[in-house]
Amino acid sequence: MASEIVELSAAEVEDFLSSQVIGRIGCHVDGLTYVVPIIYAYDGEAIYVYTIEGQKTRMMRANPRICFETDHYDGATGSWRSVIVQGRFEELDGEGAQRALGLLAARFAARRSGEGGERRQRASGRPTVAFRIEIDEATGRSVTR
Amino acid sequence: MASEIVELSAAEVEDFLSSQVIGRIGCHVDGLTYVVPIIYAYDGEAIYVYTIEGQKTRMMRANPRICFETDHYDGATGSWRSVIVQGRFEELDGEGAQRALGLLAARFAARRSGEGGERRQRASGRPTVAFRIEIDEATGRSVTR
Repeated sequence: MASEIVELSAAEVEDFLSSQVIGRIGCHVDGLTYVVPIIYAYDGEAIYVYTIEGQKTRMMRANPRICFETDHYDGATGSWRSVIVQGRFEELDGEGAQRALGLLAARFAARRSGEGGERRQRASGRPTVAFRIEIDEATGRSVTR
Repeated sequence: MASEIVELSAAEVEDFLSSQVIGRIGCHVDGLTYVVPIIYAYDGEAIYVYTIEGQKTRMMRANPRICFETDHYDGATGSWRSVIVQGRFEELDGEGAQRALGLLAARFAARRSGEGGERRQRASGRPTVAFRIEIDEATGRSVTR
């Protein structure tokens, strides 16, 4: 049974980042590593997130060097595709936060899921945080059989 | 529009860990945080993985304190469920590695996907590593609208 692990090209990494909406952030402070799922939008330069205040935002403020990951596994074929980003947390407010919201709303409209995660998150009654991830390095790989 | 964030009970965390097959590991060494997807099996005590030698295995050997995450997002309803584990990497060989393989094979047979990721991974021609994650703490949450 043949199997192949292939590094994605820069264009394939771009395409994959643009095609997904769910990712995970890995952050680290004082010996604790924390991985948490988020909904994101990618504008071709940075990753935008609008989320609820909590452990991840406290940790990213303390140590803005973070990892972002998104993947897709096809259970029928056993094929994987994933992109891993090394980047920096940058909190947004005012116009920046509005831009993040707009990108996420457009992303969800494009997917025709109709109602964005950001609406749900804004409705939670807990303080919200907008941020972007400045990308230092993005690599991807596919595993096919 | 109502939205609710609920901490999962211990039983719900167990159920969710048992129901998923894709997770992500977050590890950290020398200022670098790395998040990578893996296929896993959970036996009610620990998380078992059979994977390919690479950056994540080198990092986990250097710092076995890791985070494991698994999530499910329902795009139709905008509902989330996720579990986050703080745990310790423990490499397996001999009987332990065979046990990991057996659990993963059984897990995939149960899902009727027929062909497990482990077969694909064993076929890659690169050295493989079996390990388990000893769970120190597992928490979960659901977000529903």
